Amino acid sequence: MSKKKINVGLIGYQFMGKAHSNAYRQVGRFFDLPVDVHMHTICGRHEEAVKKAAANFGWTNYETDWRKVVANPEIDVIDIATPGNLHAEIAIAAAEAGKAVFCEKPIGNTLEEAKRMLDAVQKAGVPHAVFHNYRKAPAVALAKKLIDDGRLGRIFHMRATYLQDWIVDPNFPLVWRLQKEVAGSGTNGDINAHIIDLGRYLLGEFDEINGLLHTFIKERPLAGEVDGKLGAKATTQMGEVTVDDVAMFMARFKNGALGVFEASRFAVGRKNYNRFEINGSGGSVVFNLERMNELEFYDNTAPNETHGFTLIQATDGCHPYAGHYWPTAHIIGYGETFINLVADAFTNMAEGKRIEPDFIDGYENQRILDAVERSSETKSWIKL
Amino acid sequence: MSKKKINVGLIGYQFMGKAHSNAYRQVGRFFDLPVDVHMHTICGRHEEAVKKAAANFGWTNYETDWRKVVANPEIDVIDIATPGNLHAEIAIAAAEAGKAVFCEKPIGNTLEEAKRMLDAVQKAGVPHAVFHNYRKAPAVALAKKLIDDGRLGRIFHMRATYLQDWIVDPNFPLVWRLQKEVAGSGTNGDINAHIIDLGRYLLGEFDEINGLLHTFIKERPLAGEVDGKLGAKATTQMGEVTVDDVAMFMARFKNGALGVFEASRFAVGRKNYNRFEINGSGGSVVFNLERMNELEFYDNTAPNETHGFTLIQATDGCHPYAGHYWPTAHIIGYGETFINLVADAFTNMAEGKRIEPDFIDGYENQRILDAVERSSETKSWIKL
Amino acid sequence: MSKKKINVGLIGYQFMGKAHSNAYRQVGRFFDLPVDVHMHTICGRHEEAVKKAAANFGWTNYETDWRKVVANPEIDVIDIATPGNLHAEIAIAAAEAGKAVFCEKPIGNTLEEAKRMLDAVQKAGVPHAVFHNYRKAPAVALAKKLIDDGRLGRIFHMRATYLQDWIVDPNFPLVWRLQKEVAGSGTNGDINAHIIDLGRYLLGEFDEINGLLHTFIKERPLAGEVDGKLGAKATTQMGEVTVDDVAMFMARFKNGALGVFEASRFAVGRKNYNRFEINGSGGSVVFNLERMNELEFYDNTAPNETHGFTLIQATDGCHPYAGHYWPTAHIIGYGETFINLVADAFTNMAEGKRIEPDFIDGYENQRILDAVERSSETKSWIKL
Amino acid sequence: MSKKKINVGLIGYQFMGKAHSNAYRQVGRFFDLPVDVHMHTICGRHEEAVKKAAANFGWTNYETDWRKVVANPEIDVIDIATPGNLHAEIAIAAAEAGKAVFCEKPIGNTLEEAKRMLDAVQKAGVPHAVFHNYRKAPAVALAKKLIDDGRLGRIFHMRATYLQDWIVDPNFPLVWRLQKEVAGSGTNGDINAHIIDLGRYLLGEFDEINGLLHTFIKERPLAGEVDGKLGAKATTQMGEVTVDDVAMFMARFKNGALGVFEASRFAVGRKNYNRFEINGSGGSVVFNLERMNELEFYDNTAPNETHGFTLIQATDGCHPYAGHYWPTAHIIGYGETFINLVADAFTNMAEGKRIEPDFIDGYENQRILDAVERSSETKSWIKL
Repeated sequence: MSKKKINVGLIGYQFMGKAHSNAYRQVGRFFDLPVDVHMHTICGRHEEAVKKAAANFGWTNYETDWRKVVANPEIDVIDIATPGNLHAEIAIAAAEAGKAVFCEKPIGNTLEEAKRMLDAVQKAGVPHAVFHNYRKAPAVALAKKLIDDGRLGRIFHMRATYLQDWIVDPNFPLVWRLQKEVAGSGTNGDINAHIIDLGRYLLGEFDEINGLLHTFIKERPLAGEVDGKLGAKATTQMGEVTVDDVAMFMARFKNGALGVFEASRFAVGRKNYNRFEINGSGGSVVFNLERMNELEFYDNTAPNETHGFTLIQATDGCHPYAGHYWPTAHIIGYGETFINLVADAFTNMAEGKRIEPDFIDGYENQRILDAVERSSETKSWIKL
Repeated sequence: MSKKKINVGLIGYQFMGKAHSNAYRQVGRFFDLPVDVHMHTICGRHEEAVKKAAANFGWTNYETDWRKVVANPEIDVIDIATPGNLHAEIAIAAAEAGKAVFCEKPIGNTLEEAKRMLDAVQKAGVPHAVFHNYRKAPAVALAKKLIDDGRLGRIFHMRATYLQDWIVDPNFPLVWRLQKEVAGSGTNGDINAHIIDLGRYLLGEFDEINGLLHTFIKERPLAGEVDGKLGAKATTQMGEVTVDDVAMFMARFKNGALGVFEASRFAVGRKNYNRFEINGSGGSVVFNLERMNELEFYDNTAPNETHGFTLIQATDGCHPYAGHYWPTAHIIGYGETFINLVADAFTNMAEGKRIEPDFIDGYENQRILDAVERSSETKSWIKL
Repeated sequence: MSKKKINVGLIGYQFMGKAHSNAYRQVGRFFDLPVDVHMHTICGRHEEAVKKAAANFGWTNYETDWRKVVANPEIDVIDIATPGNLHAEIAIAAAEAGKAVFCEKPIGNTLEEAKRMLDAVQKAGVPHAVFHNYRKAPAVALAKKLIDDGRLGRIFHMRATYLQDWIVDPNFPLVWRLQKEVAGSGTNGDINAHIIDLGRYLLGEFDEINGLLHTFIKERPLAGEVDGKLGAKATTQMGEVTVDDVAMFMARFKNGALGVFEASRFAVGRKNYNRFEINGSGGSVVFNLERMNELEFYDNTAPNETHGFTLIQATDGCHPYAGHYWPTAHIIGYGETFINLVADAFTNMAEGKRIEPDFIDGYENQRILDAVERSSETKSWIKL
Repeated sequence: MSKKKINVGLIGYQFMGKAHSNAYRQVGRFFDLPVDVHMHTICGRHEEAVKKAAANFGWTNYETDWRKVVANPEIDVIDIATPGNLHAEIAIAAAEAGKAVFCEKPIGNTLEEAKRMLDAVQKAGVPHAVFHNYRKAPAVALAKKLIDDGRLGRIFHMRATYLQDWIVDPNFPLVWRLQKEVAGSGTNGDINAHIIDLGRYLLGEFDEINGLLHTFIKERPLAGEVDGKLGAKATTQMGEVTVDDVAMFMARFKNGALGVFEASRFAVGRKNYNRFEINGSGGSVVFNLERMNELEFYDNTAPNETHGFTLIQATDGCHPYAGHYWPTAHIIGYGETFINLVADAFTNMAEGKRIEPDFIDGYENQRILDAVERSSETKSWIKL
């Protein structure tokens, strides 16, 4: 083929590294992209582990120093899938090196970092993307289309939850995600950020919010290392949990809608319960990530006799992204949301268009995260 | 009021006696009937028990001999809610006495009994009704309306199950429902009869069937009596189970549709799982008695983008029966299906119209039950 | 029987009048009460309408002046099912007349009224009850039992919504429920009050709250009268909506749990969506009034292999209230929640025990309603 | 690595070709296999199309003559994903060439073909596998585990449906799947085969069956060719449909359980509704392919108070296959069932163990398909 080749360098090889690698490996198999994506280099600090990841995930090369990846003239895209405390430094260096920068969410650990990152990519004029992958679930993109088509009319409400339960056990160790200096925040940046992005994507900008952060368990056993993985084992020493277990807020959107958002790691029984409901004068939609191929839609123009929520299987050729995979009702999974995201990103890059979501979205998201934190401290409404 | 008074005499005071009593007590409270229904006399063999039932359920009088009830000139309607072995005798006597006859299903324990009962009411020219109460759930009546309105187009399929699990324990005693000489049959007459009625109601007559009856547990402890209730306690003596634990069949309907029906008391976890699905060229409907206020409807004329099963809450003023009770989505229960049935029965009686369902329905139903039994014995298809 | 007779006088004959009447008519049929409940007198301002209601609902007498009912020495219980602006006057008069007082929720239109009402019944030493009927759904009472049994462990979260959509149409007229001087408030007192009661019932007292009231449509056509029913028809003149369309709040409970509550009449597609979820260290429960016979329960002590939410049909003889009605999985409806409530009320009255919920609950509830209103005005957290 | 390299040759490049290709591409990325799987050659008759498929799917070479692939000494595994009329010839040639043979289901178009294929692989002593991929959904494998662990006790019932609706439109053209000489049969071999396999996998062998095949629409427009794809367009000429639109049967299993199976392409609204329910004395399970990450489990040993169906998200590290992908409740899709199947196949091959399912399963499956066909013709029970 005469397609342009795009070399990707990925920093990070844990959960997100695995998901991003799968996306690069699969994207050209399901999408007819304008470019050829090549998995050039993966990077991590532990040589044995990153070498193994390179082999497992299908990367041609590996590195242990991200600076070398950024400096490598062969590489076109730097993808950052590290813990949050490294995002800013890598992203800014990558932008300055003229690379496109793809970054996990939230882009920074603080609003200030996010601002510097946005400034850097804008100054450098490089493409940039942020991995708010749930926008790219077919059912969510269908919700967006229904809203854009006016099917929901004037929007009154959004209620969103992102509920998990993986740290309910007080003996669960103090892993990096529970340490502010590494993770930046707890549920706020990790999962509240996702539903905030869905709010911005589907309803537009927030106008004001009133938030509450809470930590149920304030001390945990320090994490021990097993097979190079920190946190796989608890030790007997205790340390302070410095992030939130719960982040929730009420909101007013600029379009006049009201919102209620709740993110928690203490919702026992809920594993990945990223659910939202939006009510408008024309209809309503409901999405739940645990059944991510489905969208419920209430059409308020339907006659009373047959009114109700319709369970749409967003797996049809007519639905966003779905036609690239399998026939109707042959479902896709979590991994495909990343494939869809990078498909869009490479396509827009090739066409010189803004990628969505990008660092502007990442920065705007972080403004809300920051406001939730300040609101919780001051116990007051914050205007955005 | 100047409404005509209708005196009812009810034979039987157990589960069905309670449900029928409730229907007579409530029907005039929710429906504006052309007649005044009066709960005149309840009848049962054990005086203490029937006396208590009269007081509990709200009957003016009680009797221990059904013949006296039938002979009572004040009484207009004889309602038969006894075990099946008494139906024919009482019904025929009531018809000969010029009473309207309402009867639990299946009307007889054999096809021959059912025929004699039908002949008797027709000869006497008295009104007659059979308690296939599930027709009267708003969601089922809505399904009927959608079919009658052509919304399902040409019907291809009906699959129906009535699943319970109350006799899975081999130590469950040999109660009357497990004795052919009293109950006539097991699942076939008790619950298969219900889904057969729904098949006839919604799709019309059966053309041919191929059935299978099966008994998983062939011996059980004889039932002991507790507080006048046979079967409340198991004894140590064993007796033979003479009825079917399961009744299932494949069917062709006269309209060309195919059916699959399955009734069982061995479907562990299913308590009252009377569920059907009907597929036609224009759409499909799904009903489940355990969520009896809901009907799922798939409209095949809807655009692909938003196609799916719509969960209709059949509780709106525009839905059959529902407007007589509470506002939308304030659900009704099992008891109300009987209220709806007697409301229809008294209305049609007063207007001189055929009651639906009546003994003709009861007889036609029994023809299928009988065919299933014969088919199971001969292992062959039976033409109806 | 030698049971004591209790004469009830009911003030109000619309929706709530119908539901309360049904409860008094049915309670003795399903429960073996220590007293005989007699439907003595129903009262309303329009003679023709109340006369018809008396006949329809089964009351022996009717009145058009509530003072006469309160003054009637034959009457033991005054039940108040009028719009909120009449509650206080009637309740206080009834208490002073030595009657037991049952009252619809919220008991007063203001906290001050509620306080005077509570003082009156306590001073008079009469029994008192408030119709927070959803406590009495078997599935809700089962949730309470599981919590009391420690099955949910330490409670972390409650999220509750009560969503409806009946006034989304801007042409829907300005009925009494949209007028502050009659209704006291909009969603806050009407439906937020219900989920607040469930919060108090299941988790105990609130510690502090942060609320938001909002009115989406601020002007509506004035209501015209049809057949004595105000609001059945819209006129062309416009009037101001003086109540809230939405009431929502974040909360901290005294037990340390966090709450999110949202009540709306603008949640298109939601008709009676009184849903709550409670998460504790030991497990979680989910209830939805539209499927009120079901409770979802997650048992955190179950092994991982088979963990998940269990769909309990709270219709078994072992579940609260359910054994009084039908066999397992033969569901009950909205009306039965009132039957259960008055069954408990008469039983506790006869035994000289506090009725639950009573005016203390009504008053405590109103403290939250009042705090939500003040918090919304001041945009600040309110300590309770 | 020192792992042995396995070269695969795939015959067929349409829907199944895409799914199998994805499996080979991904299997080594998620599973730590004992071999290195190499996508050596893909084969199809249209050179342009297969060349494109090779590039899209990631095959190193392509061929237009399957005989060359079979003859290629570099290739270890021949995977047959063609229409059914080519299976036998290719499989037998591949076996005779000493290749491992993987084949789509049903293995042959007739029982006689299946027998010859089984004989060929057994005679050649080569590994063989059949793509009954639904066994490999984590939730189905979990059902199998629960049964093997005795959690369902004595099995009473299996009811299974595989419902689709893609040919309800009478103008849908006469594609190869509707022609007996190419497809062998309609729903029987295409989708009934899948639920039959699940029956054999979960309950063991069938004892006798009674079947019914039916064709609702007996004539259709001949298919026209668009872009090399036959059937993409209907022509105006009509041709005879020579396969079944529906295949259903009742069954007795050798373990004494009863079965009801129904496969249809006329179940409007159902797209990929491969659902089964199994009831045993110890509990029940329910699976639905459209929500393939979930298994419902009823545990009959649970106390009445909290009994019900538990919705297990079979996505946990403790569930079969699930741990190879993403964290709990991050779902997988249809494609992963094929990955799991080939992971098992390569592992067992390397360990010299029988692959499951293999041609023995394929042949036994075909015995049931054949019996259903004969039973439908003779309208009688067929002993297996």
